[in-house]
Parts: sequence; structure tokens; C-alpha cells
Amino acid sequence: MGIEIERRFLVLGDGWRAAVTRSRRLHQGYLAREEGVAVRLRVTDGGAVLTIKGPGHLARPEYEYAVPLAEAEEMLGTLCTGRRIFKTRHDVLHGGLVWEVDVFEGPLAGLVIAEVELDDVARVPDLPPWAGREVTADPRYSNAALASAAAPPRG
Amino acid sequence: MGIEIERRFLVLGDGWRAAVTRSRRLHQGYLAREEGVAVRLRVTDGGAVLTIKGPGHLARPEYEYAVPLAEAEEMLGTLCTGRRIFKTRHDVLHGGLVWEVDVFEGPLAGLVIAEVELDDVARVPDLPPWAGREVTADPRYSNAALASAAAPPRG
Repeated sequence: MGIEIERRFLVLGDGWRAAVTRSRRLHQGYLAREEGVAVRLRVTDGGAVLTIKGPGHLARPEYEYAVPLAEAEEMLGTLCTGRRIFKTRHDVLHGGLVWEVDVFEGPLAGLVIAEVELDDVARVPDLPPWAGREVTADPRYSNAALASAAAPPRG
Repeated sequence: MGIEIERRFLVLGDGWRAAVTRSRRLHQGYLAREEGVAVRLRVTDGGAVLTIKGPGHLARPEYEYAVPLAEAEEMLGTLCTGRRIFKTRHDVLHGGLVWEVDVFEGPLAGLVIAEVELDDVARVPDLPPWAGREVTADPRYSNAALASAAAPPRG
């Protein structure tokens, strides 16, 4: 098992764009969610991964398995309807860490969330100037919730 | 994608035991279930499989992926609590088909269900004398429901 330790922030403005080192489009969907467990399919850059996340906010158990791309795309189109997210993820280096800035599309257009993975729950990352309100523990902003929710507050 | 075509029956008596060709113990649990999609982990005979089943009763889309045994057992113990089934599965040959007779344990002890997989939804299997009421379309008897439900009627 891996433990994913992650903090998430709303993003203010476009100041992060100048520091982007890599961008890719993500299509992800949730096969099912129950009692804090989420089973997610994600397709990006020609590859597909099935991820099982356990309960938690700042730290969550996480298991990842590669799955055939064609099957993942089929499942996204048939089994994840109404529980999908399309977004572009930009890597931004700040304070020695890679921040992933997700620009959402479709019904969530206008929403931009930055995630930073940490190697220790006690580590306090240096916050970039474009990091707004922290939403790590706000269940409305989990990707699993965003996939099927009406658009949440952007500010 | 595979399509699983399966009919399920309650089992009457012990007449099937004389024709058992193979038996093995299954430990399975549900990571999550949502809108007819179920994500199941099953451990048997030293191997583990993650199965995604789509909506349906007689015919359901099904995707299967092998996962590492140690990770599957860890997930069953931590992420599937309250959504697990322990049973012994016996293969029984009848009418040219393999019938799988599942003898449930724990809170479901006393429940015995026979499943037969068909290659065509229109195929009518020869029913063995120990096949009781059909429960194919009865949502109370799906394994996903049995994993967390109070015991259903046995007759």
C-alpha cells in the first residue's frame, strides 16, 4: 500500500503559468464510491491507471494498477457516466516541490485547484503567492465529489 | 470487455454433493458499489482478482484484473470491512455445464446458491433436481447485496 499525502488549494490568478514545466490532459471517472473508498480510472498520455483510494483527506491509502487503455476508455464511457472529470494538469515547480495545477473543463470550467504531494504529514510546504484557500479537508473539493457535484464555490 | 451471463438459484438439499468435481474457499469483498457498478476483490487458491461489474442481472459487463495477493488481502481487511463474503465454492457438473454451488459462511451460514454461466442469454440450461427458486433478478441475492445485508430468506 502507498499512502498519499496531499494538500489542496484553490488557485488565485494566472501567476503560476510562467513556471509551468509540463502539461497534460486528464480524463478520469469514478467507477464507484462508498464509505470513503473511491475507485477511479484515469487516462492520460496514452496510458490508463485504476486507482483505489481509502478514506482520509490529508493522508489516504492508495493502490494503483495499470489497465489496458481501450478497456479503461470503454469503462469511462459506459460505467462512469455522470461521474467524470476532464482537466488539464500543469506541473509547476515552487519551493523545491512540484505543484500540480488542475484547470477543470466542462461544467467545472473556471475551477483551478493546486495539489502538492508531501512525503510527511508534518511537512509544511512553502506556499506560492497564487495559492488561495486550502480545501484539503473540504469534501466538496475532492475530485470524487467534483466528478458528480454541481459546481462548488470558486473563491 | 466481457459479458457475464449467469443464472442463479437457491439450492435445495445436499443432492449436489455427490457430483462435486472441485472445491475451493473464496474470500471476497466490495471496495465500492454505486449505481449498479460493483468493484470486487476476490482471493482464492493463493491468487487475487479485482473485478468490475456493470449494471444488470442475467447479463452484466465484467472486467477482471489480477492484483498482488498481499495488497488484495490488505484491502479486504482495511477497505472492505462490513462488505465481505466468505464461502466455499463447489463445481458440480450437470447437463454439460459447470454449476458453481456456493456454501456461505459466517452471518450467511445456511445459505447455498448455485450459479451457472451461459454462453448465450437465450440458452436454457437443464435444471438439476436440487435447483430451487431462481434468484437471478432478485437484488437481495446478488453477492454485492449479500456482502452487507442482513441474511435474506433461504427458501
